[in-house]
Amino acid sequence: MTERMIVIGGDAAGMSAASQARRRRRDPTDLEIVAFEQGHFTSYSACGIPYWVSGVVPERDELISRSPATFRDDFDIDVRIRHEVTAIDLDRREVVARDLAGGGEVRAGFDTLVYATGATPAQPSWARDEVAGVFGVQTLDDGAAVLDWLDREPRPRRAVVVGGGYVGVEMAEALMLRGLDVQLVEQADQPMSTVDPDMGELVVDAMRASGIGVRTGLTVTDLRERDGRIAAVVTDQGPIPADVVVLGLGVRPNTTLAEAAGLPIGPSGGIRVDRRMRVPGVPGVWAAGDCVESLHRVSGLPVHIPLGTHANKQGRVAGINIGGGYATFPGVIGTAVTKVCDLEVGRTGLRERDAVEAGFEFVTVRAESTSRAGYYPGARPMTVKLIAERVSGRLLGAQIVGWSEAAKRIDVLAVALWNGMTVDEMTALDLGYAPPYAPVWDPVLIAARKAVDALRE
Amino acid sequence: MTERMIVIGGDAAGMSAASQARRRRRDPTDLEIVAFEQGHFTSYSACGIPYWVSGVVPERDELISRSPATFRDDFDIDVRIRHEVTAIDLDRREVVARDLAGGGEVRAGFDTLVYATGATPAQPSWARDEVAGVFGVQTLDDGAAVLDWLDREPRPRRAVVVGGGYVGVEMAEALMLRGLDVQLVEQADQPMSTVDPDMGELVVDAMRASGIGVRTGLTVTDLRERDGRIAAVVTDQGPIPADVVVLGLGVRPNTTLAEAAGLPIGPSGGIRVDRRMRVPGVPGVWAAGDCVESLHRVSGLPVHIPLGTHANKQGRVAGINIGGGYATFPGVIGTAVTKVCDLEVGRTGLRERDAVEAGFEFVTVRAESTSRAGYYPGARPMTVKLIAERVSGRLLGAQIVGWSEAAKRIDVLAVALWNGMTVDEMTALDLGYAPPYAPVWDPVLIAARKAVDALRE
Repeated sequence: MTERMIVIGGDAAGMSAASQARRRRRDPTDLEIVAFEQGHFTSYSACGIPYWVSGVVPERDELISRSPATFRDDFDIDVRIRHEVTAIDLDRREVVARDLAGGGEVRAGFDTLVYATGATPAQPSWARDEVAGVFGVQTLDDGAAVLDWLDREPRPRRAVVVGGGYVGVEMAEALMLRGLDVQLVEQADQPMSTVDPDMGELVVDAMRASGIGVRTGLTVTDLRERDGRIAAVVTDQGPIPADVVVLGLGVRPNTTLAEAAGLPIGPSGGIRVDRRMRVPGVPGVWAAGDCVESLHRVSGLPVHIPLGTHANKQGRVAGINIGGGYATFPGVIGTAVTKVCDLEVGRTGLRERDAVEAGFEFVTVRAESTSRAGYYPGARPMTVKLIAERVSGRLLGAQIVGWSEAAKRIDVLAVALWNGMTVDEMTALDLGYAPPYAPVWDPVLIAARKAVDALRE
Repeated sequence: MTERMIVIGGDAAGMSAASQARRRRRDPTDLEIVAFEQGHFTSYSACGIPYWVSGVVPERDELISRSPATFRDDFDIDVRIRHEVTAIDLDRREVVARDLAGGGEVRAGFDTLVYATGATPAQPSWARDEVAGVFGVQTLDDGAAVLDWLDREPRPRRAVVVGGGYVGVEMAEALMLRGLDVQLVEQADQPMSTVDPDMGELVVDAMRASGIGVRTGLTVTDLRERDGRIAAVVTDQGPIPADVVVLGLGVRPNTTLAEAAGLPIGPSGGIRVDRRMRVPGVPGVWAAGDCVESLHRVSGLPVHIPLGTHANKQGRVAGINIGGGYATFPGVIGTAVTKVCDLEVGRTGLRERDAVEAGFEFVTVRAESTSRAGYYPGARPMTVKLIAERVSGRLLGAQIVGWSEAAKRIDVLAVALWNGMTVDEMTALDLGYAPPYAPVWDPVLIAARKAVDALRE
């Protein structure tokens, strides 16, 4: 008797689940796998879109790790692109999908369902669809639309990016690299609010030094068009002329279908899942990726952190379990890295404001150091900030900003944080030392020492 | 009543101890600190010598982090350079020092003694002092002697480096960068024996590709001279012409004085110390740096790993304790990184042979990946090897070889190892992901996944 696994969403989480399940159940007459994807592509790097738009990555197809044909031919996974699932019927255990290309509707029964619909960009009321030259950057199709617009006459000269999260900042850089005059508009006091304001200042300085205009504390209220094209972004402090507008206002879990079907939604807005990525109380239904919520291992709270690395891990865990193995996703600690012009930024764990909210008392330190031995050519400045709990000395969060070899140093702090290390324990960590790669006290260790001193005061 | 702290050895360990003690006991009438150093310099980066010899670091003084004058003026530490301590009298609690410059002998009583004499280069019987053009690379004075020789007429053209440890490999590169024809001679089957042979092969390939001759399985038996200058290195497979010879044969703990005074020596040949860096059974006597042995946290065995980063940490711990604080040095896990031509090498924990010796059963995996998202410019290949204990799945050791952003990734594995993580736990680690810095599955995570699979087999 053939079982059928249906996957809704053909990107990282869904296709990881599908391929992991297939790895363990290779016979398609034992397990049939069908994946519905509403777009044109499967398993691509959405995080790579800004680098494609900037021209750093020349070809769209470089962002695609596996095509529908690869899944069909190499994995016996039946991927149906341009199919939008419109309903999940849990009683009849079937999904209804609309064929966006050919028209018509498909009904397909399932034994196992993986819900991996990803996230939906925030759409403020002023972001009307009909204004030409206004784009999100969520999918490869979005990226193609931006590139097409940039190449069309009259060529856009002035860009406004609304929203200063990772995507906004990366798109601002991408457009700057393409020679546009770029303004980044952020409602809050700083862009890159995933780091504390003192570290965020360094990021803003770097953006401005690269020629990107950064305007904060500004609310967008409308768009102004001329001849059917975008002409300006209207804010509470006046209009900003624009020939192209990119929206980077964040995303929310895409749970429309899930809510309609009665799947449980958690306090963060994402679908609730257990450690094995099962949807609790709904046998045979799994969820993974940007549509679910995760446990934050430091605060203990459920969070929604849409990121390809989590989506891949969660999809893998779901797929192993569906395939009869055992794997768990033990949560996240909020690690993220990004490049802002030539500046490297890394963060993990709680920011000061998160730590306050979670009820921690803590000390914070900032240590200035260099990426390499001070005398070694190419040594560049680096700032490491640590947040450590009072009394226990346990690391709660860390942020790094620097000019080279800085971002991925956050991983050292992430693993320390993951394991509940105290800053005192961290001062003894046996990290690699050689003049081309680190000072004899690695910047991470210098910060840990400073935190130990701060805890004594 | 003024207490007196005497430090033997004015480099990393000794001066870290001195300055940490001073930080906590600032009044020199409360604690007088005297440091004897037989060379001309204090607190310098011996690890930087190859880069000074190569010309990458232009000036000797860049390698000096604090001069004797700085210690005197800023730390109230009385550093006496060119003073060789010749005896420790534990009964009378005094040391005897010879003034190498002015002549004469000094006797100085102590309440606290810090033994930080470092390590001594191995001197095989054939390495006779009187042959001009043969050098160790242990001290700044050694580095100056090499540079002086390279500049003298007739200019050396052919270099032989004997010994393929870190210093040997780094010196081979340094001499190659200065335009010499370089042969590295190693008695064992591979240079860089701190990594397993399969990873070491990659290192040898890179050296040869850079134009460095690598000859292994070759025993040096003598030196041949002509007109008082080195002419060849004689081996059991014939002579190798040489105008300059650099010895990189490893070091042993410098314990001459300690043994004479009856300080306990451990099985690794280093001085025994407790967690606070006290010499057990000898009240008031401390030891730190390249002369002591350390606990290897994975094998549980005492080891001698001479390295600036440990020396600094151990000196700091001793100094904090001497100053009335509390700190411990919990051991090492053998993390090391180095640059071999353009190749980056990192290692931590046990090699296969160490794991066998320590009695572990284990699986090993090697995972090929890239430093950045495959589509991001500058992505370069990287090989990550993991050794994981059978049944428990605990990480025992790791090695990384790669062409960029590879070496310091070992730190992630070092912190995982330090915390006793299993490879299964590691697959869930929340590491930084962005296309310029990592594939969506970081090379470290890919290797962990592969190890999980290997453990199932």
